[in-house]
Amino acid sequence: MGNVLVGGDQPVRVQSMTNTDTRDVAATVSQIRRLEELGCEIIRVAVPDSDAAKAIKQIVSQINLPLIADIHFKHTLATEALENGAAAVRINPGNIGGKGKTLEVIAYARELNRSIRVGINAGSLEKDLLAEYGVSAEALVKSALRQTSILEEAGFAQFKVSIKASNVPMTVAAYKMFSEISDAPLHIGITEAGTVRSGAIKSAVGIGALLLSGIGDTIRVSLTAPPEEEASAAWEILRAAGVRRRGVEVISCPTCGRTEIDLIKLAGEVEKACAVINKDITVAVMGCPVNGPGEAREADYGIAGGRGCGILFRKGETVKKVRAPDLLQELIKLIME
Amino acid sequence: MGNVLVGGDQPVRVQSMTNTDTRDVAATVSQIRRLEELGCEIIRVAVPDSDAAKAIKQIVSQINLPLIADIHFKHTLATEALENGAAAVRINPGNIGGKGKTLEVIAYARELNRSIRVGINAGSLEKDLLAEYGVSAEALVKSALRQTSILEEAGFAQFKVSIKASNVPMTVAAYKMFSEISDAPLHIGITEAGTVRSGAIKSAVGIGALLLSGIGDTIRVSLTAPPEEEASAAWEILRAAGVRRRGVEVISCPTCGRTEIDLIKLAGEVEKACAVINKDITVAVMGCPVNGPGEAREADYGIAGGRGCGILFRKGETVKKVRAPDLLQELIKLIME
Repeated sequence: MGNVLVGGDQPVRVQSMTNTDTRDVAATVSQIRRLEELGCEIIRVAVPDSDAAKAIKQIVSQINLPLIADIHFKHTLATEALENGAAAVRINPGNIGGKGKTLEVIAYARELNRSIRVGINAGSLEKDLLAEYGVSAEALVKSALRQTSILEEAGFAQFKVSIKASNVPMTVAAYKMFSEISDAPLHIGITEAGTVRSGAIKSAVGIGALLLSGIGDTIRVSLTAPPEEEASAAWEILRAAGVRRRGVEVISCPTCGRTEIDLIKLAGEVEKACAVINKDITVAVMGCPVNGPGEAREADYGIAGGRGCGILFRKGETVKKVRAPDLLQELIKLIME
Repeated sequence: MGNVLVGGDQPVRVQSMTNTDTRDVAATVSQIRRLEELGCEIIRVAVPDSDAAKAIKQIVSQINLPLIADIHFKHTLATEALENGAAAVRINPGNIGGKGKTLEVIAYARELNRSIRVGINAGSLEKDLLAEYGVSAEALVKSALRQTSILEEAGFAQFKVSIKASNVPMTVAAYKMFSEISDAPLHIGITEAGTVRSGAIKSAVGIGALLLSGIGDTIRVSLTAPPEEEASAAWEILRAAGVRRRGVEVISCPTCGRTEIDLIKLAGEVEKACAVINKDITVAVMGCPVNGPGEAREADYGIAGGRGCGILFRKGETVKKVRAPDLLQELIKLIME
């Protein structure tokens, strides 16, 4: 997809979607640049009309990320987006208007050496599949297979597939089923996941389970929130699943009746200070000086706070004792050394 | 565990841990009552000394939830906690002081008909296992098996096991491995997960993957945050994994270049209004009047907003058109009918 390889042995890529009006080039470019800084690697924009498709030309000239045009209902918007420089188009077989129109889009993509994402969605399944299977993992997989066979019969291999529902077990089952049958790269996510808090948790359950099963080539955390939240949640999920890392991971013990310092505040401060440190390390913030360093043996650096003072440690070994108010500062100093 | 059955066909139970000083009975009771309101079903308290163990007597007389006393280092705190009315004790084989002391705790638990949680933690593994396996899923499972065999040889069956690390793939692998060998009920969670946002995502990846594999009898989301956050995150994870529901689930589409209303605000308002509605339903908040109701077919009720006005729908069928400012109010009215 443009300058970003997807699938096979490539790293799992972080994707997001703008929520600006695509016709507003300046706003869209500015949001995409912010997302790039947050680690977003592929960006999708809505293309509801021809003006939006035309705006792509100016947008792509000002950004580094490959752009996917999101198309519904009208296949000519897909061809127009490709002509204007979209690295890929996302089409939804449930509403694109049949095989003939899909073949037209394929012809353009082949001619211009671009990619296609087939985006299956539980909310817009073909009517015959709904009648036979209801809204189910089976229906989602049948819909995906029907569409990928059109691409494959046309000899077009540059595509990925997404199979999304807002129901997590159904989504996970569908991806697992499909990946048993097909080798196509998979874009994974939970659709309509919800607001920033509950949506991130819901996405983490679904995307995380798939990543832990080795499924997924690109991910998007769909949130009813600014897309910047999507990018950072995506990286949290990748890191938790042990798939990719970006920046400092802060682990911190839950507070309990043993805690004698304000650990919630301290952990927040450490997280904030570490957000700008560009090292792939783990930092532990523990509330208990007795078993803190031991419990956080897996961490590269850490602090364990007690009453009035705490200790600084590296790889589970105590470095020195530090007064409580200096813990944060001494920790950052140790990391930067 | 007290009046709450755990394991077998019982529902997956939500557990949390107080962060008050256990010796402060009033503060601890008040936190436990708030947690109960948020759906917490089992509560753990830290017992660092004999005064804390003594406080349990007064605490349990004022709460409905079964209480687990969290014990480290000193097995007599476990026996004291049991005598004072703890429904269970959590002991950590890595620091309880050997088999003889575990057997003493078992004797008390059997005599008083109480339960034991064996809490294995990557940070406090036995030295010989660390030497042979390093910090790994194998070491965690060996440690758990060593401990459960002590319980089983003593003919004591009323126990559950936790095997926690802050590394998600290691934790998931250990639980899967252990559950192949043992039928013991499992308490699942990710230890030292982190702050309210990243910790919830990390826990969701680990706990969610296990729940989707059918593993887990009780769960705790360990957060460096007030325990109230743990209870609500736990329910979000249970719901996402399709395991248990509590209250209204709000699904909402991510905003995109097609959205013509302030969906982030509206979804937040709907979520807030629904938080007090005691119905197990799904409510959709969609930004796009064209495919909103279709995409949200799985929802019981919903709204889809457009420019100036939107539609109200029930099970994917349009109920009526509504002016944008009235969407929230009309939705709640429809739900309450």
